[in-house]
Amino acid sequence: MARHLSGKEVNASLHAEITEKVLSLKSKGVFPQLRLIRVGENPGDLSYERGTARRCEELGVVMTKTILPENVSQEELLLAIQEANQDKNVHGILLFRPLPPHLDAALIENAVLPEKDVDGMTDASLGGVFTGKRIGFPPCTPQACMAILDHYGIEVQGKRAVVIGRSLVAGKPAAMMLLKKNATVTICHTRTKDMSAIAREADILLVAAGKAGVAKEGFFREGQTVIDVGININAEGKLCGDIDSASAEICEAYTPVPGGVGAVTTTILLSHVVEAAENALAWQEA
Amino acid sequence: MARHLSGKEVNASLHAEITEKVLSLKSKGVFPQLRLIRVGENPGDLSYERGTARRCEELGVVMTKTILPENVSQEELLLAIQEANQDKNVHGILLFRPLPPHLDAALIENAVLPEKDVDGMTDASLGGVFTGKRIGFPPCTPQACMAILDHYGIEVQGKRAVVIGRSLVAGKPAAMMLLKKNATVTICHTRTKDMSAIAREADILLVAAGKAGVAKEGFFREGQTVIDVGININAEGKLCGDIDSASAEICEAYTPVPGGVGAVTTTILLSHVVEAAENALAWQEA
Repeated sequence: MARHLSGKEVNASLHAEITEKVLSLKSKGVFPQLRLIRVGENPGDLSYERGTARRCEELGVVMTKTILPENVSQEELLLAIQEANQDKNVHGILLFRPLPPHLDAALIENAVLPEKDVDGMTDASLGGVFTGKRIGFPPCTPQACMAILDHYGIEVQGKRAVVIGRSLVAGKPAAMMLLKKNATVTICHTRTKDMSAIAREADILLVAAGKAGVAKEGFFREGQTVIDVGININAEGKLCGDIDSASAEICEAYTPVPGGVGAVTTTILLSHVVEAAENALAWQEA
Repeated sequence: MARHLSGKEVNASLHAEITEKVLSLKSKGVFPQLRLIRVGENPGDLSYERGTARRCEELGVVMTKTILPENVSQEELLLAIQEANQDKNVHGILLFRPLPPHLDAALIENAVLPEKDVDGMTDASLGGVFTGKRIGFPPCTPQACMAILDHYGIEVQGKRAVVIGRSLVAGKPAAMMLLKKNATVTICHTRTKDMSAIAREADILLVAAGKAGVAKEGFFREGQTVIDVGININAEGKLCGDIDSASAEICEAYTPVPGGVGAVTTTILLSHVVEAAENALAWQEA
């Protein structure tokens, strides 16, 4: 039986750190604030919003919301972003995506100031992940994967890491983060041939394919650590990841779904808000 | 004996394309212009400058120069860049690097307008290589590697590509370009264990380690295509790449040094200048 790498356990230790920082900020009169910008009433967005609100409350982060109708004009949405950019009390901005198709997503995403881009959405933040410079913030999901590896003391340097998936929200930035930690990184995708053999080469297998059951029997071996980024609904209507967890039991350890990477993502988001508040304070004091 | 992938041959076909574009631009009154900005009298820079001047003449691209003393102040250099940014007749800017240590390289490199950043030096251009959006221009060296693969019709999709080296001028962007062409890409570096075995897995092996003889006996196998990005001086004072070419003879094909990737890099640079001129014209006409 593989060990389950619990997001809850990672959160507990991150929460302690974040709470301490929030207290220190508050003692200096700074109240870290996350501004949610939501267009429409997508049930997934609403559920994430409730989870984020709970987490904000636990950690003492202020959450404010701008809610716009599904048919909002591009100008109105850009105005809402600009207002949040200019508001000195707002430290981080989370814009729910995908946006309705009548809006120019690339333009809107890049309207967020990099220093408030706590979900690594802008080209500047993503470029920073590639160049290794700290511009804006990295996307939360791949950073949550790194936080799990860190927390459980899983060595990355010199190991072979295989990433399945090349999206800009997960696979590609995860590959860059593993590379920065000195793993030898292989990136697989839908055009990869003989993916199971490549997956078995991995010491660390990170699956971010966005599809249930992509990593199945034949992908795993003893000694592996498997990070499952997927969040899917299976035929029985239950949450599941991208890996077949029964087959992954031969591994050393894997992250369960639910209770793995997804559980840590919001914590990372709020750690970015707190960091953004710290940076704003440092600028102000400088 | 492996086939030698000749940069000269690639250039011949690229030159024909570029010359045609230059003629078309000139017929519309646009004279594509590259502005070189050089600090000091580094012999490597001077030699590259002579080569670039020759190539500009061949292709009908105007080359202008701003030459500044080794002890130039940051302000003077930034002013020279700003002047080139604002000059509508200048379409591309090439700044020789590395800069003397008294200058803030990161700041200066990012002062170039992305649309004139024909050597992929700015964070914006590099971010574009990562996100797959076309922002500015990609670095010339990795694009020269892709041009060679294209020219010789070497299939990339679904192949295993191994990149040795993770610099921002070669290895990392090359990895992203191979990924975009649907290769399964592995990135190796100084902390990689058992690099020879990983190199042998490659259908396409791209060596950008910046050190002679990094890829040697044991790294190669039959059927491989090897792209050698290195430019080094060996013990006998002769130019050599990063691979031991005698060992690479068992491969299907490799790029020689000199006469391989390096020969194509300047051509790519000038193709960027021409593209920048075309873009400027399109903007003007829009």
